[in-house]
Amino acid sequence: MNTLSHEYYMSLAIKEAKRALEEEEVPIGAVIVSQNQIIGKGYNQVERLKDVTAHAEIIAITAAANYFNSKYLPDCTLYVTLEPCMMCASAIGWAQIKQVVFGASDPKKGFSIFTPSPFHPKCIVEAGILEEACTTLLQDFFRSRRS
Amino acid sequence: MNTLSHEYYMSLAIKEAKRALEEEEVPIGAVIVSQNQIIGKGYNQVERLKDVTAHAEIIAITAAANYFNSKYLPDCTLYVTLEPCMMCASAIGWAQIKQVVFGASDPKKGFSIFTPSPFHPKCIVEAGILEEACTTLLQDFFRSRRS
Repeated sequence: MNTLSHEYYMSLAIKEAKRALEEEEVPIGAVIVSQNQIIGKGYNQVERLKDVTAHAEIIAITAAANYFNSKYLPDCTLYVTLEPCMMCASAIGWAQIKQVVFGASDPKKGFSIFTPSPFHPKCIVEAGILEEACTTLLQDFFRSRRS
Repeated sequence: MNTLSHEYYMSLAIKEAKRALEEEEVPIGAVIVSQNQIIGKGYNQVERLKDVTAHAEIIAITAAANYFNSKYLPDCTLYVTLEPCMMCASAIGWAQIKQVVFGASDPKKGFSIFTPSPFHPKCIVEAGILEEACTTLLQDFFRSRRS
């Protein structure tokens, strides 16, 4: 796998999602990349922290902001396994993140159902990277919880 | 002032906003009330923490969730001096907060400009409580920064 490709970075976000899975959280993971380096990462910790704000993206944004000691992250790409909700999408907008790449779509809670866009006007959004792997992870999790 | 009134709790949110002001942050404050008790509070710390997610409401929600050791806050009212942005409004929605009361409106970044609503369907929203005090605090801050 090309180590500079969207697929490569999404595979790292999937690795984060699997850490969530190990902790019995909904498996969602995120990484933030700047100049081909991972400068922030996070996985969903809502249940462990009992805190709705502990989404993978929020944790990754806080980590990346710490890395740069800057609240703005204009040269960064955020990779996340599931389409961000509006809380995370708005945080991405506030941080002026340049590019957002996600795997699975979320037609119930994803930012796409809202208008206007929460992102910075110059933000580039790409969907469906390693979508099947991201979706399967989530489906397997919810199936195992129901059985 | 009636200590169980919206105005009373908003005055406590304004007190939080003034703590932000002392730290040269945009003066926005929030408190979360359950059964007439403050169980979470927060003020804007975006500059100090260099983190766009450090809005008053997010800090107050995390504090309230810690108080109850629960991610859901269905019996709570959140008071905030400025209309929440979509990041905060979506967090309020995720936490299933029952009621949101804000002071000043935010026609540029407030949740009201977005559709659909980010709140839980049963959430009650009230605007304009101690609006003048909340607005003046913000106007004075931005005026002093320009001079």
